[in-house]
This record gives sequence, C-alpha cells and structure tokens, in this order.
Amino acid sequence: MSSANLSPNSQTPTIGVFDSGFGGLTVLRALVDRIPQARYAFLGDTARLPYGSKSRRTIARYAVQSAQFLVREQGAQFLVIACNTASALALDAIQDAVPVPVLGVIEPGAQAARAASTKGDVLVIATDATVQSHAYAAACQALGLRALEKACPLLVPLVEEGWTTHTVTAQVIDVYLSELRAQAAAAGLKPDALVLGCTHYPLLRPLIEQAVTPGVRVIDSAESTAETAFREFGSQFAPAVAGHEPELHFFATDSIEKFERLGSCFLGRPVEHVHLIDLGG
Amino acid sequence: MSSANLSPNSQTPTIGVFDSGFGGLTVLRALVDRIPQARYAFLGDTARLPYGSKSRRTIARYAVQSAQFLVREQGAQFLVIACNTASALALDAIQDAVPVPVLGVIEPGAQAARAASTKGDVLVIATDATVQSHAYAAACQALGLRALEKACPLLVPLVEEGWTTHTVTAQVIDVYLSELRAQAAAAGLKPDALVLGCTHYPLLRPLIEQAVTPGVRVIDSAESTAETAFREFGSQFAPAVAGHEPELHFFATDSIEKFERLGSCFLGRPVEHVHLIDLGG
Repeated sequence: MSSANLSPNSQTPTIGVFDSGFGGLTVLRALVDRIPQARYAFLGDTARLPYGSKSRRTIARYAVQSAQFLVREQGAQFLVIACNTASALALDAIQDAVPVPVLGVIEPGAQAARAASTKGDVLVIATDATVQSHAYAAACQALGLRALEKACPLLVPLVEEGWTTHTVTAQVIDVYLSELRAQAAAAGLKPDALVLGCTHYPLLRPLIEQAVTPGVRVIDSAESTAETAFREFGSQFAPAVAGHEPELHFFATDSIEKFERLGSCFLGRPVEHVHLIDLGG
Repeated sequence: MSSANLSPNSQTPTIGVFDSGFGGLTVLRALVDRIPQARYAFLGDTARLPYGSKSRRTIARYAVQSAQFLVREQGAQFLVIACNTASALALDAIQDAVPVPVLGVIEPGAQAARAASTKGDVLVIATDATVQSHAYAAACQALGLRALEKACPLLVPLVEEGWTTHTVTAQVIDVYLSELRAQAAAAGLKPDALVLGCTHYPLLRPLIEQAVTPGVRVIDSAESTAETAFREFGSQFAPAVAGHEPELHFFATDSIEKFERLGSCFLGRPVEHVHLIDLGG
C-alpha cells in the first residue's frame, strides 16, 4: 500500500466498513444512501473468505486484524461490521481491540424482525458459523421474539457463481426453506418474518420472496443497519448536500480484479480503484 | 501443538501430504493403498480454504507455509501436494522453499489422461484458480494432448454440503458439462477423457459418470499420483508387511470436529486425533 491519496481526509469523519468478502457492499450501499456525506473505507478480507464455515477463534483473529487496519491505517472513527458471521462471532473481540464505536448487523436485523413480525415468531437463514453461534436467536429473544435459525451453505457460492436467477438456485432455496418450515411446524412456531442473515442473500431476494409462505415478510438487515448507524453516528457529520458524490475507498486482501467485477453487483455502482493490502497470513 | 507422540519416528520415512482442506484425503487414501508402510503426516489448511477462488500470490504463500510445517515440524522426507489448485499455482514455489522431493497432482493426472485417451483430446474440470493457471492444458500439451478446461465452482460447496447424490447436484453437473461439450464442439475437439481436476470431485464420480457422453472415460488423478509416488519414493521404504496398519497423523488449521466428520468420507476410514496447528494469518 502506498501514496497520500489513501490517507484519510481530516475534514470528514471516516466510517470503516468491513466484510470477509463482497456481500457487505449491500450494507455500504444502504449506508451511503443514509449518510452520503461520510468518507467510507471498505475492506473485504477476500484472501481468507469465506468466514462462514470457520471456527470462532479463527474468525475473531481475522476480523480483529481487519478492524485494526481500518482504524489504524484508515483513521476510521466508526466501524460497521457488514458481515453477519463476524458480527455473530467476533463483535466483542473487535470492540475490545479498537477504541471506536463498533456496530454489527445482527442487532439491527433482529430489530427489523421485531418491527415486521406481529406473531413474534421469526425464521433466520445464515451461514453455518452464524447459525452455530445462535447470535440471532439470542438477539431476537432479547426483543421478545422466538427465532428458528437454519444454515444455508450453498447460497453464497451460488451468488458468487452469478446464478442469482437460476432454476437450480430456486430449487436449493426451496430445499432449505421446506426443511425450515417443517422444523418450525414441529416446534409449534407460526413465523411471519424471514431474516436474511447473510449479506450475500439480498441478491437472491426475488427467488426467496417467491419461495416463502404467503404472509411471511423477508427482512434484509442492510437497511436496518444503516438506520441504526445514522441514529448512532449521524450527528457527527455535517448536513448532506444535494448531489454530493460519496467518497469511497476500497481495500481487499486478494484479487482486485474479482473484487471490482463482483463488487459492483452488490454495491449497485462501479467498484473502482481497489487497493490490495496484506494483513499477514 | 505439543507432546512426543507427534514427533516423527526416525525408523520410517515420513510422506507429508498437503491440501487446502479435506479433498486431498482421496489422494492419501490411494497413497496408503500403494505405500502402506510409510509414516504419513497430512495437513489440511482449513482456516484458509478454499484456495480455488484465490490469487496465485496468496495461494503460493499459504502453500509454502504448509509445506514448511510438514518438512520442518513433521520431518517429511517427501511431499505430495494433494490439491490441484496448489499444484497448479504453487508447485515451483514449494519446490524452491523445501529441500525434499515434491510431487503435485497435475502431471500424474495428465499422464493418466494420455493413457486413457485414444483420440488425444481431453476435458478437464477444476476450480477457478486451477483453470486460470492453465496448468492442465500445459501438462497435457507436453504429452501431445489437446485439453479444454472448465471451472466448476459450485461442485466443492455441494460436496461439502453432503449433496453428493442430490438431484440438484446432478443438474449443476449437467449445466457445466453441457457448456463444456458445446465449447469442445466449437473448438473442433473430439474428447474421450474427462479429468477430475479437483480432489473433491471423486466423491461426485457416480453423478459425473452418468452425465458424460458415452465413450468418455472419467480420470481421477489420485490413483495416478499414488502410482507416481510409488515409482519415485517407493524404493526408500522397507517392503510392506501384510496386515500392517498405516501410521497416519492429521493436522488442521481450523475446526478439528469438522475435519474429523467430513474427512472420513474422503479417506474411507475414520479420521481421528486431528491436531490443531497455527500457521499464522
């Protein structure tokens, strides 16, 4: 890494946004809509993705290194952990490791579920590691909701393969949701909300909407996370100016070309000038 | 890591076998059949898998660290890189980094294809990184074969999800092989062999056999790699004794529980007493 154009501008506070890969760009997109006047530094730890199949110890080590990069090297005054797995397994470790406010996506997701659910029973689909942590069940329970969680390990690879509208993907979603419905029925739950507990899943939202039981609302934590960030950090920024172009800086630990190509689908605008960094390992 | 029972036995040479994950256990299985009297140290770099979607630079760094562990800590006198991606992108780097003979799986796979093909045209399915390296095309060309390679990124996650006989997996294989057949026809090739260029794929062999055009032979490099190892290192070992139980030591950089559970499917016998190690990163 090099050069002055990467060092933070002291005029505008920086929000550091971190994900294991590209999925967190859906959260960055919602943040930019809500707080356009911030400077953003987004890091995708692509050399070590996916986190979702790994252990808590390994995920925490990787996530802390990434958070420290954003705070120490990019001067981030606020951190958003735009990765469900890292939020579920490493939020405490990150909060202990850096001296700035850190916001994860689990709590905002649970709050959005509470707002959407009238019956108090919700479903959560996520990666293996997120489900095994039961972070969503705990966050939902704290809000008076009952949550049933299910790991859907094939959905991330299907999104990364670009099969977001493929008939095979629709079938995979059907298999997972049928199993989840059967488990919910067996547990006596009457769910009316489904939380997308992984930042890749919003790209499958049309197929998921088709597969859920009528009356079940699909919840994406990106919007809710951006709302929470606005409430918590928003007052630190000068008022937004109409037509302001957001200041976005991108960092990845592996293949910049792939980051730029796939990342644009998640962000909804071109991802350019990604900087390759080395976190060791 | 600790304790005397992990240190190599000086009586029996150690063959170090390395993969990014579990798939290489299919190669270990073939090695144990062929050279049962060796001591084996198998390392799965599970904290950083999969390698198949990463860049050459990152793959080489990870693979060299893994190879050095097997040679320095486990006293391996021979190394088998039981991972197509690491063989394709990091064989030279590993050979430069350790002072022992190193065998990859690409060259043996190409040799098996030459033995199987009468027409001289072969197909190769593999990970993204392996295909982009064109290591198989080069190894095949050196043997007078024309090879067409295709990346199949969904097959590894499907195997890891345990969907090795699922109808969805059959459809995914059909999509990939149909595209490959169309590309072969457009290039004027008449392939009569298909190389499984990833150590996960042998677990999908029944579905792949059903999906190939009649007359196309399916080639698994595990057997061929074990044969090559026997030719190159076999004379260093005392003759095999009937009923000898192989001495196997397992190391992983992440979740031992998952390694033991999934690994047994690949090895065809229980994977027990896996030791967790830290390669940094």
